[in-house]
Amino acid sequence: MSSTSNTNEQKTNSIAVVPADNDLPGHTIVLGETVPLKLASGQYLGPFTVAYQTYGTLNSEQSNAILVCHALTGDQFAAEKHPITGNAGWWDMVIGSDLPINTDDYFVICINVLGGCMGTAGPKDLNPKTKKQFGLDFPIITITDIVAVQKLVIDHLGIKKLFCVTGGSMGAMQVLEWASRYPENVFCAIPIAGSARHSAQNIAFHEVGRQAIMADPDWHGGNYYEYDVLPHRGLSVARMAAHITYMSDSALHRKFGRELQDRSDLSYGFDADFQIESYLRHQGSTFVERFDANSYLYTTRAMDYFDLAAEHNGVLSAAFGETSVRFCLISFTSDWLFPTSESRLIVHALNAVAASVSFVEIETDAGHDAFLLKEPEFFSILSGFLAGAAEQRGLRIARID
Amino acid sequence: MSSTSNTNEQKTNSIAVVPADNDLPGHTIVLGETVPLKLASGQYLGPFTVAYQTYGTLNSEQSNAILVCHALTGDQFAAEKHPITGNAGWWDMVIGSDLPINTDDYFVICINVLGGCMGTAGPKDLNPKTKKQFGLDFPIITITDIVAVQKLVIDHLGIKKLFCVTGGSMGAMQVLEWASRYPENVFCAIPIAGSARHSAQNIAFHEVGRQAIMADPDWHGGNYYEYDVLPHRGLSVARMAAHITYMSDSALHRKFGRELQDRSDLSYGFDADFQIESYLRHQGSTFVERFDANSYLYTTRAMDYFDLAAEHNGVLSAAFGETSVRFCLISFTSDWLFPTSESRLIVHALNAVAASVSFVEIETDAGHDAFLLKEPEFFSILSGFLAGAAEQRGLRIARID
Repeated sequence: MSSTSNTNEQKTNSIAVVPADNDLPGHTIVLGETVPLKLASGQYLGPFTVAYQTYGTLNSEQSNAILVCHALTGDQFAAEKHPITGNAGWWDMVIGSDLPINTDDYFVICINVLGGCMGTAGPKDLNPKTKKQFGLDFPIITITDIVAVQKLVIDHLGIKKLFCVTGGSMGAMQVLEWASRYPENVFCAIPIAGSARHSAQNIAFHEVGRQAIMADPDWHGGNYYEYDVLPHRGLSVARMAAHITYMSDSALHRKFGRELQDRSDLSYGFDADFQIESYLRHQGSTFVERFDANSYLYTTRAMDYFDLAAEHNGVLSAAFGETSVRFCLISFTSDWLFPTSESRLIVHALNAVAASVSFVEIETDAGHDAFLLKEPEFFSILSGFLAGAAEQRGLRIARID
Repeated sequence: MSSTSNTNEQKTNSIAVVPADNDLPGHTIVLGETVPLKLASGQYLGPFTVAYQTYGTLNSEQSNAILVCHALTGDQFAAEKHPITGNAGWWDMVIGSDLPINTDDYFVICINVLGGCMGTAGPKDLNPKTKKQFGLDFPIITITDIVAVQKLVIDHLGIKKLFCVTGGSMGAMQVLEWASRYPENVFCAIPIAGSARHSAQNIAFHEVGRQAIMADPDWHGGNYYEYDVLPHRGLSVARMAAHITYMSDSALHRKFGRELQDRSDLSYGFDADFQIESYLRHQGSTFVERFDANSYLYTTRAMDYFDLAAEHNGVLSAAFGETSVRFCLISFTSDWLFPTSESRLIVHALNAVAASVSFVEIETDAGHDAFLLKEPEFFSILSGFLAGAAEQRGLRIARID
C-alpha cells in the first residue's frame, strides 16, 4: 500500500515533458508514464520521450545487441545521413555492413541522451505545467540518469543482456556507468578515449563554454525560445573553444600551420587571416544550426558531475566489484583532453578486482577526436575485440580480416 | 631634399595619438614627433605616447640596463604595487634588491607595449582627426612595431647597448625580435617560455578570445567607449579561456581537483559548484577591471602575426646571422602553450649560426605561468646567467649565492 501511495506521490510531483514538434526520422518511445524516473538530483521525471535509432537486426536470442553511446554533441544518427546537416553519421565509418561494428552481425542501438535536443527530453521541450519551453527549469541530469534512461529503452526492446556497450568521450562515461551499475546486463564494454571522472581542466573548458553562452544577451536566462532568438554567438564561441581541445597541437600544425586563408599576405586587421581561424569560425557557425544552447549547458554539466569513484567512497575499483564484464579500453597518444593516464586509472581499478581487461593506447596525432576518424589500428582493435567476445558469447558472426 | 619631403609627407599622413587621461605613476615620453614611426603594416604613427617604469640606477657607463618585456596582459608595473589592482607587480619576486634581477646591480626598464592600455598609445586613446577614441581605427601593430618603439625609448635614455633583454611568453617574442633586429644593441638575451612563431593552436585560442569579445553586443564594433559600456562579459570569457592555457592539467588537478566551492554537495544547477569554476570566474571578472578589450584584440593579434623565420624566407637561423648576442633560453616541462619543442627550434637555429647559447628546461608542473611564479631553479638560472654575462661585460655586481 505504502509503495503504491509513494508511486502516486511521485507521479503527482513528477516533471512531465512534452516533446517539441519535430519531424526527425527514427524511433521514439514514451517512458516514465507508470513509474516516473527518479533522477540523481532527487527529482522525478515522467512521462518523457526518448528518441533512438537502430541498425542491423536483433537475433532471435536477443544476444547480438550493441549499445553505442554518443558523445557530447553527437546524437542517435550514428550511421546514416544526418537529418539536419546532411552530413554522414558521426560513426558512419565504424557502424555498417563489413565495418568494424558489422551490422550484418550485430544489432546496433543508439539513443539520444536525456537532456539532448534530437528528440529525447531536454530543455527545449514543453513543460505542460507552464505551457512554456523548459529552459533552465529542466532538471539537471547526470550520466547516471542518461544511462538509467538507456536501460529503460533496452528493457523495452526486450534485451536482457547487451552484447556490448561502447562509445567515445562522454560515450565512454556512459559505458563505464553501464558496467558499474548494470553489470549483469552487459557482456562486454569498450570505453574509448574516456575517463572515470571529469578533471579540473575538463570542467574548466566546459565552464568557459557555458559562460560564453550565458554571456550572450540572446540567451535570456535560458528563455530565448520565447524571444524568437537563439544565442548563436555564445554557442559558437563555446564550440570553438571546445573544438580546440578535440585536436592535438601537432594535428593543428599539420593541417593548418600558419597558412593564410584565401590571401597571399596578412590583412593587418581582424579578418580570419589564418586558415585555423576560418576553420574554427566555420565549426562554430555550423554547430549552432544543429544544437540547442541549453542542451549544451545540460550535457556539459552531466560530464562535469561524472565521478564514478566518488559514488564509492573514492575507491574506483569498488565501482566495478566482482564484475564479469569483459573490458577493452582504448586511448590515443595525442589525446590531451582525456589522456591515456585517465584510461590507465580505470585499468588499474579493474585489475584490482581481477576483471577481464584489454587496454590499447593507439599512436596517432589526431587528438581526442581520433575516435571519430579513420584510424586503421583503432578499427582493427575494435573489430578484433568484438570478434573474440562474440566467440565467447557464442555468437555466429562473419569474420572480417 | 627628397628625404625631407618624404618625411613631411609621412608626417602629414601619420596617425597621431592623443593619450586618454590617466593618472598612472611612472614615466611617459612622446615619440614620433619629428619622424613618425613606420609600422609593419606600412602606416605611420606619431606623435604618440609611451609609458614605462624603471627600477635601480643606470651606471655612468650606461652598461647595466636590463629591458624587461612584459607578456600579453602584463604592463610596465613589473616590480611595484599595481596602481589599479593594488596587487604586487607581475615580476615582484624577480626584480628587486637581492632578487634574481638585482636592482642593486642593474637598471631595469619595463615599457608598456604599443597597443596596450596602461599609458602607451593604444585603441582607447583619442584620434585627434575624429576627436573620438580609436577603437578599431587604431592601426594593427606587430611585435616588430612594439620592439621598434622600445628601441626609441632606449635611444632616448641614452643607452647604446642593453646589458640584457628578457621576458616570458609574448615578452620572449620581443626578446627574440630585439636579438634579431638590433643585435649590436643587446649584450645578452633571455627569452623565457617563448617561441619564434605563434602556432596554429596558439592562434586558435586567441581567435576564441577575440570572437568572445566581438560577440558581446557591448563591444559595439569596438566603439564601446562612445556608449559608456564595456564588453565585460566577452572579455571575461576570453580571459577564462586563455587562463586555462596558462596552467598545466596536473597543476589544476593539484590545486583544485574536483573540490567543491563553499558547499558540501553538488547544487544540481549551474552555479560554480567546483572551485575551478569559481576560480576561473574570478580571473575573468578581475581582469576586466584593469584591461581594455580592444587592447586585448590588438596584442593577441601582434602575437599571432609573429613569425621570425617568415621574415627570412622561412629560415630561422637567418634571423640571427653572425650574432654576438649571448642567449639563455628557458622553458618549462609542463608548458603546453609554448612547449619546450618551440624553444628547441630556436636553440637549433642559434646553433646553426654558432651563437653562444645556453638552454635550460625546468622541471615543474606549473605550466606556462611558471615564469610568473616562485620557481627556485628558474630564479637561480636567471641570476646565474646574468652574473656570468655581467662578468663578460665587465660589470661589477654583488654576487648573490
